[in-house]
Amino acid sequence: MTPSETGDVTVEPSLELDSLFNAVRSRSSELCDALEPDDFLLQSMPDASPPKWHLGHTTWFFETFVLAAADESYVPFDPSYGYLFNSYYESVGARHVRAERGILSRPTLGQIMNYRKHVDARMNDLLASDRDRAKLDFLIELGLQHEQQHQELLLTDIKHAFSRNSLLPAYRDSLKTSDSTPPTDEPWLLFEPGIRDIGHAPSPDGFAFDNESPRHRVFLEPFEIQPRLVTCGEFLEFMADGGYERPEFWLSEGWDRVNRESWTAPLYWNRDGSNWMNFTLGGLRQVDHNAPVTHVSLFEADAYASWAGCRLPFESEWEVACGDREVEGNFYEAERLHPAAATRVAPQQFFGDAWEWTLSSYSPYPGYRQSAGALGEYNGKFMCNQYVLRGGSCVSPRSHLRRSYRNFFPAHVRWQFSGIRLVRQLQA
Amino acid sequence: MTPSETGDVTVEPSLELDSLFNAVRSRSSELCDALEPDDFLLQSMPDASPPKWHLGHTTWFFETFVLAAADESYVPFDPSYGYLFNSYYESVGARHVRAERGILSRPTLGQIMNYRKHVDARMNDLLASDRDRAKLDFLIELGLQHEQQHQELLLTDIKHAFSRNSLLPAYRDSLKTSDSTPPTDEPWLLFEPGIRDIGHAPSPDGFAFDNESPRHRVFLEPFEIQPRLVTCGEFLEFMADGGYERPEFWLSEGWDRVNRESWTAPLYWNRDGSNWMNFTLGGLRQVDHNAPVTHVSLFEADAYASWAGCRLPFESEWEVACGDREVEGNFYEAERLHPAAATRVAPQQFFGDAWEWTLSSYSPYPGYRQSAGALGEYNGKFMCNQYVLRGGSCVSPRSHLRRSYRNFFPAHVRWQFSGIRLVRQLQA
Amino acid sequence: MTPSETGDVTVEPSLELDSLFNAVRSRSSELCDALEPDDFLLQSMPDASPPKWHLGHTTWFFETFVLAAADESYVPFDPSYGYLFNSYYESVGARHVRAERGILSRPTLGQIMNYRKHVDARMNDLLASDRDRAKLDFLIELGLQHEQQHQELLLTDIKHAFSRNSLLPAYRDSLKTSDSTPPTDEPWLLFEPGIRDIGHAPSPDGFAFDNESPRHRVFLEPFEIQPRLVTCGEFLEFMADGGYERPEFWLSEGWDRVNRESWTAPLYWNRDGSNWMNFTLGGLRQVDHNAPVTHVSLFEADAYASWAGCRLPFESEWEVACGDREVEGNFYEAERLHPAAATRVAPQQFFGDAWEWTLSSYSPYPGYRQSAGALGEYNGKFMCNQYVLRGGSCVSPRSHLRRSYRNFFPAHVRWQFSGIRLVRQLQA
Amino acid sequence: MTPSETGDVTVEPSLELDSLFNAVRSRSSELCDALEPDDFLLQSMPDASPPKWHLGHTTWFFETFVLAAADESYVPFDPSYGYLFNSYYESVGARHVRAERGILSRPTLGQIMNYRKHVDARMNDLLASDRDRAKLDFLIELGLQHEQQHQELLLTDIKHAFSRNSLLPAYRDSLKTSDSTPPTDEPWLLFEPGIRDIGHAPSPDGFAFDNESPRHRVFLEPFEIQPRLVTCGEFLEFMADGGYERPEFWLSEGWDRVNRESWTAPLYWNRDGSNWMNFTLGGLRQVDHNAPVTHVSLFEADAYASWAGCRLPFESEWEVACGDREVEGNFYEAERLHPAAATRVAPQQFFGDAWEWTLSSYSPYPGYRQSAGALGEYNGKFMCNQYVLRGGSCVSPRSHLRRSYRNFFPAHVRWQFSGIRLVRQLQA
Repeated sequence: MTPSETGDVTVEPSLELDSLFNAVRSRSSELCDALEPDDFLLQSMPDASPPKWHLGHTTWFFETFVLAAADESYVPFDPSYGYLFNSYYESVGARHVRAERGILSRPTLGQIMNYRKHVDARMNDLLASDRDRAKLDFLIELGLQHEQQHQELLLTDIKHAFSRNSLLPAYRDSLKTSDSTPPTDEPWLLFEPGIRDIGHAPSPDGFAFDNESPRHRVFLEPFEIQPRLVTCGEFLEFMADGGYERPEFWLSEGWDRVNRESWTAPLYWNRDGSNWMNFTLGGLRQVDHNAPVTHVSLFEADAYASWAGCRLPFESEWEVACGDREVEGNFYEAERLHPAAATRVAPQQFFGDAWEWTLSSYSPYPGYRQSAGALGEYNGKFMCNQYVLRGGSCVSPRSHLRRSYRNFFPAHVRWQFSGIRLVRQLQA
Repeated sequence: MTPSETGDVTVEPSLELDSLFNAVRSRSSELCDALEPDDFLLQSMPDASPPKWHLGHTTWFFETFVLAAADESYVPFDPSYGYLFNSYYESVGARHVRAERGILSRPTLGQIMNYRKHVDARMNDLLASDRDRAKLDFLIELGLQHEQQHQELLLTDIKHAFSRNSLLPAYRDSLKTSDSTPPTDEPWLLFEPGIRDIGHAPSPDGFAFDNESPRHRVFLEPFEIQPRLVTCGEFLEFMADGGYERPEFWLSEGWDRVNRESWTAPLYWNRDGSNWMNFTLGGLRQVDHNAPVTHVSLFEADAYASWAGCRLPFESEWEVACGDREVEGNFYEAERLHPAAATRVAPQQFFGDAWEWTLSSYSPYPGYRQSAGALGEYNGKFMCNQYVLRGGSCVSPRSHLRRSYRNFFPAHVRWQFSGIRLVRQLQA
Repeated sequence: MTPSETGDVTVEPSLELDSLFNAVRSRSSELCDALEPDDFLLQSMPDASPPKWHLGHTTWFFETFVLAAADESYVPFDPSYGYLFNSYYESVGARHVRAERGILSRPTLGQIMNYRKHVDARMNDLLASDRDRAKLDFLIELGLQHEQQHQELLLTDIKHAFSRNSLLPAYRDSLKTSDSTPPTDEPWLLFEPGIRDIGHAPSPDGFAFDNESPRHRVFLEPFEIQPRLVTCGEFLEFMADGGYERPEFWLSEGWDRVNRESWTAPLYWNRDGSNWMNFTLGGLRQVDHNAPVTHVSLFEADAYASWAGCRLPFESEWEVACGDREVEGNFYEAERLHPAAATRVAPQQFFGDAWEWTLSSYSPYPGYRQSAGALGEYNGKFMCNQYVLRGGSCVSPRSHLRRSYRNFFPAHVRWQFSGIRLVRQLQA
Repeated sequence: MTPSETGDVTVEPSLELDSLFNAVRSRSSELCDALEPDDFLLQSMPDASPPKWHLGHTTWFFETFVLAAADESYVPFDPSYGYLFNSYYESVGARHVRAERGILSRPTLGQIMNYRKHVDARMNDLLASDRDRAKLDFLIELGLQHEQQHQELLLTDIKHAFSRNSLLPAYRDSLKTSDSTPPTDEPWLLFEPGIRDIGHAPSPDGFAFDNESPRHRVFLEPFEIQPRLVTCGEFLEFMADGGYERPEFWLSEGWDRVNRESWTAPLYWNRDGSNWMNFTLGGLRQVDHNAPVTHVSLFEADAYASWAGCRLPFESEWEVACGDREVEGNFYEAERLHPAAATRVAPQQFFGDAWEWTLSSYSPYPGYRQSAGALGEYNGKFMCNQYVLRGGSCVSPRSHLRRSYRNFFPAHVRWQFSGIRLVRQLQA
């Protein structure tokens, strides 16, 4: 069992906050080492952001929500940056149009790196000081979790942008790959009906976003759940059976999308004669039949499930099925940046490889309270027309994930590493 | 207590199927009595359909799903009508573009009325025959429920179209109105935590759509629910407090919509000096402060709830709160075609007046199975990016409604009579 | 030579103004005789208008620009009609959105016909009175020419709407058809270089729009012009030679349009096996190889000319080539409502059959002055991004046409009866 | 009279072709000296291109149309570049989508500069060789003129992109400025009616695009033309008189644009209290009342002319009025990169400062023949829905301009340095 199999070794959840801070912040730079200077302004669609912007925005987040909160007299590094690097915080003020982040050639990359250094220095001062931990440490952790989200997005965004360039550049040529073996035929995991506790259980050091609370009870009718992710090979069977041409498997809105955008395969797949090729962060490769299928929308996931005579899980089912498993799997730290066939380490793939679509629309848990002030905008205002994904992907930092984590995207979205796990309903 | 207060007297659920058939079909014609010949081609937006099309489509439904199912040798009235009057059944074949139903001047209204007569005669033959009840009676009931849905849509669609004509014509001049008195201050209805049964309980004669099944268990944390609908007067307070200008109350997608479409009030409200006027099916009227607010999107309902320090109900909470109440209220049969202040008859307004937005996205109940064949497309394929509304409105036929009924529309939609009821979460 | 060959017998240019007025106005009603009541609200695209609207708008034109001009105390038939029936006169006030004329079910057709009667009566009073001829007669003639333009549009608009209905209804079943013979091989018309006079030559009774003046000099290099219109048979050769697939023949914007809208033939042509069918005002027919091709955009006309090694004429060349020819040809009065093979009467087809695309963008003649007030908006403000067509079509009223007449449409438009005549440049 | 007043000193038309080649190519690099590495991927709208793309495309042009034409065995520097750097040559093959040039982070800037070096070396070999001058020299000159067009576009494109960044960066801080004095009141230039020769007169060394030929005769009615460009101060009077709020001055399509895009001033003007500020390539400045107004659309130019009781010139009038004047004025070489008040050197401003809108749509001259092969696509296929501009601007290279030069843009376009000169029609 190599370190890359077990995942994260540098960014341990148990690190002290100051070490954690510097480890997470460094990784953002490390992610950019593989880029050419030309790549930093890339924005290939409104949902994506340029690397430069990710670097500036995460820094602005610490400046605005930590440094200014800690010290009323804090003077921003550059007062014009607020307008440029505010993402969507209405209460913080006006901001640059999201779809046009790709025209922000200034500030230059050098200026943004200086901005990072400046804020990091001030943050380290704060972390070394006798700070008001009750008030600030949650905000600092929030900033780090936020930065980890943007690290993942930086990778998915650059993958999308590179895929639109006919040169099909690789993000990294030296990514690890591993032997691919077919999944073994394990029994599905069975769950009896009953009342279950769902959501984040408060604990002294466990961080969670507000949308994971409060912990509450749900009743689940009996179900069984697939003990691994759906593979590319299985998805190819769906395709071979006319999956993309048969409306009976599809949600109505999905079928419209299939036709309007001429979908015939997951995003990044292209047929080359009789082969299917897959554009990856390591460049163009053959589709690996044993690896989990990713870059499918909820529509495709749902159609596949329908074709297979199953359905997708509700998020509560996923969370119950995940149980107390360790956060083990194929994460960013495995240095593959691509899904891999299930291994001995985490054969059930609850964490890593692919974010798993659920049938659950993203909505508040009963008793949910969004944070006061600007940070209340972090999660709550997006609880409409989005669907929950669980588990984390091959580009998620390991320390960012947990069982109660609720990721969310619109149903049509495909540029994330999003995959499929099936559920079968049982008779009560 | 007048008949119009108690609702439907002509179309009783207890009617024999043949009487019910003729009663429902007649009402579609009755609804058109108030129209000018010029109005039958009106389509003011893609979501709405012209009256002619409603008349033809509901007839096609009986022809296709009942007459042809009952008799394999059935010859359609006109083979070209299938293309014109198929709404969205992929398995039945190609069809006319939805957004362009307003250009179907042919067949003429006369031809469509002949089509209705022809199909009604054949249906009456079938109803009088020794038919295969096990196979056909559900389909016939489905056709009638379907026609009732279109009766409601015909009214909401014509209201929308008339509102876009600067002449602001009334659908009917002679609609009933009633005294408006402020709602009394009743305590909210309290519900203890516990396991509850939700969904349609099968019974010999009770019809339900497939999306209301199966009946299943949910766990509800404690809550209390408002014992009536939110009034226009209350909504005006929200507006006066800057409701439409303060992003902190709004879902992100809702706030975009507010700005993009310049929303400042519910649909059909217009300021006339210091007064707010309301375009109704009876023409232009002053906003009645005591009547329930309607024609609000889920976004507005959610923003109002947020401003009021509450939230919207989940659909399971609504169904539990509704309990075994009789289907009493302000329906189509009350001949108002507009919401009214709560009355002694049905003071809690669970049925009638306004469809009530819930936080529940429209998704399958655990164990849901969609019907086989074309009718499987009736409901299941829309279970994405829509939200459930409960209770029925002032233009719903009384006999169409029931406690387990799940109506659904996208969150931004305002042309239905959609309103607001609040919930307060309690500590478990 | 039958009357239908020679064209208009009822609406003679030489008629007295009062007879002319009643003849033109009656024809609008006559045009509607072939319609079902259901057809009057039809609007199949923003460029087209419903028959009801044409009837109301032309009446509003007389009311606003003649009756109100003649008598300051004139009280409009209904003050709300101005908003509904103003087309584009900014100086007359706000108006209903053009693309939504199809939702104006009210006023009813009956009310509009009453409006017509009312205005016709008042107009006849005025025509019988001792009116200020210097001030009014031009306005009355303008109103009549305007109504004739709308008569032509009513036919092209209804053709477009009917073509979108899968029933493909005929506007009239009883249209005349004529034997189709191939065009004879006549020499092209040759013109030596020289200074030519172009534009409307003022005369006591000759009406012209302001855009036809002033008469002015142009220098034309030598050219020869085709002595008839390009036929469908010839256009089929272009198609057979890959005309719609070879970018080298096309203007760049035309080529984009071909691809974006998947053009493979003129509008209204559909392949039926090895045959090309043509949807006409008389219903579906085979393409007549000898008849002029119509319903082509300027892009298609230009591509055809390029393929043929020629070019389209400039409007000055057309006007010079037309010379003093009588206005003879296949007009509305021929009761075909479709182009026909050239006949002995008007073998060169300068008038009738098809409006002929020119290379000339619609721009002011040197010295052009637009009329004062609202009527200045009639023509001048459209002199951008439109191209001039000459000659008149098979649905133009004969008395509406003249040698200096400048019709104009955007280059991509195909729903008019627009056709092709070629020019060859000669060495100076 | 300083060199910067007289314009170009480095790139003389009289240079030998090899010197000219190297001078023009060097200037493209020189233009980029003022950019940060971050700026090279900037594309702020589909009409604009990133600097990197301009550098690559102009190089591809020489490689494709000169090197490959000179030597059939020429092997492209990189065969994948054709797809990336082909702009619109259908006959050369498929290409990257224009609106998405901003996502071409690869090839890197370094690779593109190597590409330039490689092609420049091969070109210098060719220029030093005993080449087929008859065949190649025109192509080389075409490539240089083409590169000069892109040099101008690079500046207008970067100006547009910078204007969308709230930091409002200057392209160059050190641009020259000059004293601003009000224009003197010179008499308008009068032209008698008569036949005139228009277009490029072939000469041994004079280059011209195909669209400037053949030279031909036109007849011009008498007119007088303004002896300088309209100033910002004059345009402010139009604005103060409600110019942008009064539809009577506007073309219909222009008025739609004013309202849809909320135009209230020329592009790049912003009100700062009672001042109007102007974003320039030198950063934000006050509007100079004496300098020519630029960055107006044809719609604004036409509305201004209408307000002033004049009209815009036809291109033939401009060319006649320009006559044999030397190409003197405020060009790129003056190092202002902004229009300037008229000076003694070229007080009539026929060349430089601003491209002058004309009423002439861009159409073929009688007898026009587009070049054979791919280069035939250079000009001819754009002759629709564009309008001719004459004279050149403050960012045009001096040696690029000539009297017969026909620039063209759509009527709504404002990101070019486009300005206004008036004409008054005289009685014949």
